[in-house]
Amino acid sequence: MVATVNELEHAAMTAGQRGPAEHQRREQILQAAGEHFRHYGYRKTTVADLAKAISLSPAYIYKFFVSKQAIGEAVCALCLSERTAALEKIVEETASPVECMRKIYKSLALKGAQLFFEDRKMHDIVTASFEERWNNLDAYNQALIDIIRRVLVRGRELGEFERKTSLEEACRAIHHTMQSFFHPILLEQNLDHLEEDATAVANLVLRSLAP
Amino acid sequence: MVATVNELEHAAMTAGQRGPAEHQRREQILQAAGEHFRHYGYRKTTVADLAKAISLSPAYIYKFFVSKQAIGEAVCALCLSERTAALEKIVEETASPVECMRKIYKSLALKGAQLFFEDRKMHDIVTASFEERWNNLDAYNQALIDIIRRVLVRGRELGEFERKTSLEEACRAIHHTMQSFFHPILLEQNLDHLEEDATAVANLVLRSLAP
Repeated sequence: MVATVNELEHAAMTAGQRGPAEHQRREQILQAAGEHFRHYGYRKTTVADLAKAISLSPAYIYKFFVSKQAIGEAVCALCLSERTAALEKIVEETASPVECMRKIYKSLALKGAQLFFEDRKMHDIVTASFEERWNNLDAYNQALIDIIRRVLVRGRELGEFERKTSLEEACRAIHHTMQSFFHPILLEQNLDHLEEDATAVANLVLRSLAP
Repeated sequence: MVATVNELEHAAMTAGQRGPAEHQRREQILQAAGEHFRHYGYRKTTVADLAKAISLSPAYIYKFFVSKQAIGEAVCALCLSERTAALEKIVEETASPVECMRKIYKSLALKGAQLFFEDRKMHDIVTASFEERWNNLDAYNQALIDIIRRVLVRGRELGEFERKTSLEEACRAIHHTMQSFFHPILLEQNLDHLEEDATAVANLVLRSLAP
C-alpha cells in the first residue's frame, strides 16, 4: 500500500518520538522547542537547556523524543508543512494549471526568502535538516512531488500540457528544477536574483510542458 | 570590457595569490597542496603542515598565497576547470546541439559522482568551496553559462531550438536546472538516481527548447 502524504507528513513529524501519542506534553515540548530554537539557535541548544526553559527534566523530554534531532525534525516538519499547505492552497484556488505552476515557483522562492530574512534561526534548522538529511525531508519531497503531479494531471486533462512524457519522469524532473528555490543552501546563495530566476525556470518548465 | 572565461578562470586560480606570477615555487606549492589535501583533507591541514610537508617555511608560502583558503581556491579552480574542459570538448566534438545538451548533463553527473567515489577528499574541498562561496565559483558558473550559451546559439542557428525566449534568460534557467548535478551537496544527496535524473532533466530542458 502506498502511504499518503498525510501519513508521510505524520511519520515525519513523529519519527524518533515515543510515549503516548496524544499527550498534551508533546505539543507543549514542541512549541517550547520551536521558540527556544528560534531564539537561541538549534546548534547551541541542548536538551538540558530546553528542559530547563520549560521546567521539565531532560528525562521527561526523552520520554517523548529519542534525541535532540528528533525534536528538530518535528519542528522542521511543522515549518515545512506550512509551505506545502501554501502550495496546496494555490493548487486548489488556481484554475489554470499554467498559472498554478508559475505560482508554485514563486511561492517556494518567496517563502524561502521570507524564512531567511525574518526567521533566520528557523532557516538554520531547516538548513541543518537538508545538510544532514533528516527524516523529515522524505515527506517534504514526497509532498512536493504529489503537488507537481496534481498540477500535471490537471494540465494534461485540460489539454494545456503535453501527454507524451511519462508522468513520473516529468514530476521528478520538475522537482529537480525547483531545488534552486526550496533547498535552503541554494536559496541562500541565490537571494539576489531569486524571484527573477524562479520566473525564468518556471517559464522553461512551462515551455517543456507545452502540448 | 567583458572578461573572457579564460581571464575569469585565470582570476579564479590566482585570487588571493601574490608574489611573482610565473614563479616555479607557486606551481610546486599548489601541486604539494593538492596532494596533501587529497591525503589528509583540507580542513585538517594547516599552512604549517603544508609547509613542513614540502620543506618550506609558512612565511615562504604566505609570499605566494594570502591564506589557506587562497590555496584551496586555486586547487579547486584547477579541479573544476578539468570539468569545464570536458564539457568544452563535448561541445567541440558533438555536431548535434540536442545530443550535446544531453551529454553535458551526463558528464556533469558522472564527473561529479566520480570525484565523490574516487577522490573523496577533493570532493570535500569542492563542497567547502560551494558551502562557503569561495572566489573560484564565479568563474566556474560563468564558464558553465558560456558553454550553455554556445550550445543554444548553435541550436538556434541550426533551427533545432526555439528562438523566442531571451537567450540570457534561457541560459540562466538551464544553468539552474544543472545544479542538481554539479552542486556537490545536491549531487551527494542524489547519488542513487543520478544518471536517470540527469537524463530526465536533460529531456525536460530539450522539450523546452523545441522550436
